[in-house]
Amino acid sequence: MASPITPPRGMRDFLPAEKARREHALGVIRRSFASHGFDEIETPVVEDVARLHSGLGGDNEKLAFSVLKRGLDGDDLRAALETGDMLALCDLGLRFDLTVPLARFYATHRAELPPVFRSIQIAPVWRAERPQKGRYRQFVQCDIDIIGEGTQLAEVELITATAAALEALGLTDCTIRINDRRILNGLLEYCGFAEDRWPQVLISVDKLDKIGAEGVVAELSEGGADSAAVLGGILSGLEPHLADGGVELTVEAITGILPTGMDPDAVAELEALAHALDTLPTGVRLRFDPTLVRGMGYYTGTIFEIAHPGSGSSVGGGGRYDGMIGRFLGTDVPAAGFSIGFERVVDLIEVPEDATSESVVLVYDPAVPLDRLAAIKTELIASGRRVRLDRRAKNLKAVLDRAAASGYRSFAFVNADTADASSLEFKALS
Amino acid sequence: MASPITPPRGMRDFLPAEKARREHALGVIRRSFASHGFDEIETPVVEDVARLHSGLGGDNEKLAFSVLKRGLDGDDLRAALETGDMLALCDLGLRFDLTVPLARFYATHRAELPPVFRSIQIAPVWRAERPQKGRYRQFVQCDIDIIGEGTQLAEVELITATAAALEALGLTDCTIRINDRRILNGLLEYCGFAEDRWPQVLISVDKLDKIGAEGVVAELSEGGADSAAVLGGILSGLEPHLADGGVELTVEAITGILPTGMDPDAVAELEALAHALDTLPTGVRLRFDPTLVRGMGYYTGTIFEIAHPGSGSSVGGGGRYDGMIGRFLGTDVPAAGFSIGFERVVDLIEVPEDATSESVVLVYDPAVPLDRLAAIKTELIASGRRVRLDRRAKNLKAVLDRAAASGYRSFAFVNADTADASSLEFKALS
Repeated sequence: MASPITPPRGMRDFLPAEKARREHALGVIRRSFASHGFDEIETPVVEDVARLHSGLGGDNEKLAFSVLKRGLDGDDLRAALETGDMLALCDLGLRFDLTVPLARFYATHRAELPPVFRSIQIAPVWRAERPQKGRYRQFVQCDIDIIGEGTQLAEVELITATAAALEALGLTDCTIRINDRRILNGLLEYCGFAEDRWPQVLISVDKLDKIGAEGVVAELSEGGADSAAVLGGILSGLEPHLADGGVELTVEAITGILPTGMDPDAVAELEALAHALDTLPTGVRLRFDPTLVRGMGYYTGTIFEIAHPGSGSSVGGGGRYDGMIGRFLGTDVPAAGFSIGFERVVDLIEVPEDATSESVVLVYDPAVPLDRLAAIKTELIASGRRVRLDRRAKNLKAVLDRAAASGYRSFAFVNADTADASSLEFKALS
Repeated sequence: MASPITPPRGMRDFLPAEKARREHALGVIRRSFASHGFDEIETPVVEDVARLHSGLGGDNEKLAFSVLKRGLDGDDLRAALETGDMLALCDLGLRFDLTVPLARFYATHRAELPPVFRSIQIAPVWRAERPQKGRYRQFVQCDIDIIGEGTQLAEVELITATAAALEALGLTDCTIRINDRRILNGLLEYCGFAEDRWPQVLISVDKLDKIGAEGVVAELSEGGADSAAVLGGILSGLEPHLADGGVELTVEAITGILPTGMDPDAVAELEALAHALDTLPTGVRLRFDPTLVRGMGYYTGTIFEIAHPGSGSSVGGGGRYDGMIGRFLGTDVPAAGFSIGFERVVDLIEVPEDATSESVVLVYDPAVPLDRLAAIKTELIASGRRVRLDRRAKNLKAVLDRAAASGYRSFAFVNADTADASSLEFKALS
C-alpha cells in the first residue's frame, strides 16, 4: 500500500490495556448517571447534513466531516462547481457533538418520552480539528441532559450526578465554576456594549485566562474604547478572586465583586442552587466566576464548568439552553445539560485491579493434545476464572512478563502428562 | 426544517428500554469473550479510503460510506469530472466491517502485541444497503479474532468462546455448521469447473437454500453445462442431510456424503476439531455442511456459521483467513475469526430483571424545598438505590405506570412535610 499503515490523522487506536481502562471509566460513569435516574439512549453517528448545519452547532459546524452522497454523477459535480456549495454533494455528516442529535432525537420521539426526560449519551463525536496534544478528531463525550424541567431542579440533578461520577472515578479535587448568562449579559450592558457585539465580546472574555484583562481590552477597543475600558477595569478587579476559581455562591459574595444592578433574580438563584447542592461530595467545591462564558451561543441561563488540578483545561461543562430543543419542534422546551470531557478525565484516573475474578495463564506444551487442552481451559473458565493460553517458548520469562503486564495474576504449566485442571500447580506472576 | 425529523434512512435511534437491552447483551458477550482470554481493542470508525477499497472487503466495499475531503476546490471537482472517480474527492470512509480495520491495526501495532493475539472488537459498522427488514445501515458486530495461531487451537478457542457467549445470552438451541474451503474447492474441481469460475460458482452455491439445486444448475449452465449437471447431482443428493444442518463431523459421515477423493487432510482436521470441541455447552450442535460457502473471498480453510431456530438467517459466522492479515504487512500471518451478528441475536434474548439494586421513584410535591428534595435523593442513592424524581401530577396513575414500564420497582411520595429519607413509605409498583 502506498499510504503509511497508521490510523487516520488525529485519530487513535486503543490497545488492550488502554481499552480496558476506558471501558472501566465508562462503566463507572454510566452506573453513576443511571443511579441518579438518567436513562441511556443512542442515536446514529451521522445526521442529515442540513440538520447538522442548521446553526445550532456554532463553530463546530465548520469542523464536521461530511459523507458523500452515493450514486453522484457529472451533473451533480457541475452543479457544485457552479454554486461552490460542496455540501450539496453530501447527504449526511458525522455528528460534532451529542446535543444536536439529542434535539433531533427528542423531536422524533417526544410522544414516547416522559414529560421530564433525563438522558444519558455516552458516545464518540468527530471534529476535523488541526490535531494537537490532547485534541483528537474522534473523541468520546459523556452527556447527561434534562429536557422539560424549567426549574433549578435540573441544574441540581445534573451537577449532583456529574459530581458523583467524578467522585466514583476517584477525582476528589474538583472545582465547579458557575455563572449565569443573564449576569454576563448584564455586565456587557453595564459596560455599554451594543447588543449585536455581545457574541464577539464574549469570545474575548472567554480568553481572559490566556490573554489577561489587558488583552481583552486590546481586542475590544476597536469600535468602542470606552466600553472596553470599563470592562477592563471590572476584569482587573476580578482577577484576585478568580485565582481561587471565583467566590462563594452567596448573594453577598456575588454582589460584592460585581457592579451594582446585575440581574437580582439570577444572583438569588445562584445562591439557592448552591444551597440545594449542600450534599455534594466533600471533594467538590462550587465557585461563582462571572467571567465564565462557555463557548456555545445556545446557553440561556446557568452555565458551569469543572476544573481539576490535573488538567490544564476544563474536564466538563454545561448549562441551561431553553431555546434550543424547540428549534426542531417549533415550540419552546426547557433544557439543561452537563458533559464530561471523557478524554481528559480518563487520563487522570487510577484503575483498580480487578478483584472479582482470578486471571490465569496456562503455559502449554505444543505436545498436549488439543482436546485435552480445550477441556482444561473450559474447566477453569467454568470455575470463574479468566484463562489465556500461551504456548511454551524458549524465552519463558518473556511469556510470563507479557502475562503479568496484561493483568494476569498466576500461571501454570500444561504438559503432555497433565490429565486435567485439578492437577495444575498455579504460581503467582510477579 | 424542510427534512422530516427522523434518523437518517436505514438507521435507528434506541430509546431507553432498547438501549438497556443492547447494553446488557453487549456486557454478557464482552465478559464471555474476556473470560476466554481475548482482549478488547478499538479502532477509529473511519479508515483511509484507499485501504477500505483495497479489495479485502469484497462486495461490501461498494457499500461503503465515504467522507468528503475538507477544503476541496473547483480543481478537485473538475478532476473528478474528468476521471469520473468520485472516490478521489474523499480521504476517509466509514468501515463496512471490523476485519479490514483489524488487519490495519495489526500492521500498525504488531511489535506491541503478543505473538498470538486474541482480539475482541465490539463496535458499529456501516453499509449503504437498501434498507429492508432486519438490515440496517448502521449495525453492531461482535468479532473475536486470533492472529498468529496456525493450528486448530484457533478454531477451537473461537468456537468455544462464541458458544459460551451465546449460552450466557440464553440461546441454548444453536447449530454450528462447519465446512472447509479446501473441501469446497475440491468439489468444484471434481465437477470440472475452471478455477477462474470458482468465485462465481460459490456465489450460486451460497444461494442453495433459496433457489435449490435446480436453481444453482440453471445459474451455472451457461458456459459449462456438464460441470453444472455434476454439481447439481451432488447438491440434490445432499439436500436430505442439509435439512438437519448437515452430518456429524466424523471422517466416516463426511466422506459418506461426498464424492471420493476430497482433501483427506481437511476431512481429518474437521473430525479432530469436533473431537476438541467435545466440551461445548449441550445446547450447541456441530454439523458438517459441504454447501456452506460464507461470502468473503479471503477465507482459506475452516468456515463456520451459527443457525438458531428463532432467526431466519445466520446469527454468526467466521473462518480461517490466513492470507489476509499479511496484505498490509507484506508477510503471511495465520488468522481466524468469528463474528456474532449482534442485531439478530439481541432480538432473540430475554433480559433478566436487575436483581442487584432497588430502583425507586420519588413522586414529589412541587412545594417541597429544592434542597430537601436533593438531600433525600442523595441519601437514597448513597444507600445503593437507583432514584428517579417525578413531579406529582393530576394523573398519578400515568406517573406510576411510566415508572413501572421503565423498570422501577417501588415508589414513595415526598410531600412538604417529609423531613428526610427515613420517613418515606415505599409501595410496590405493579
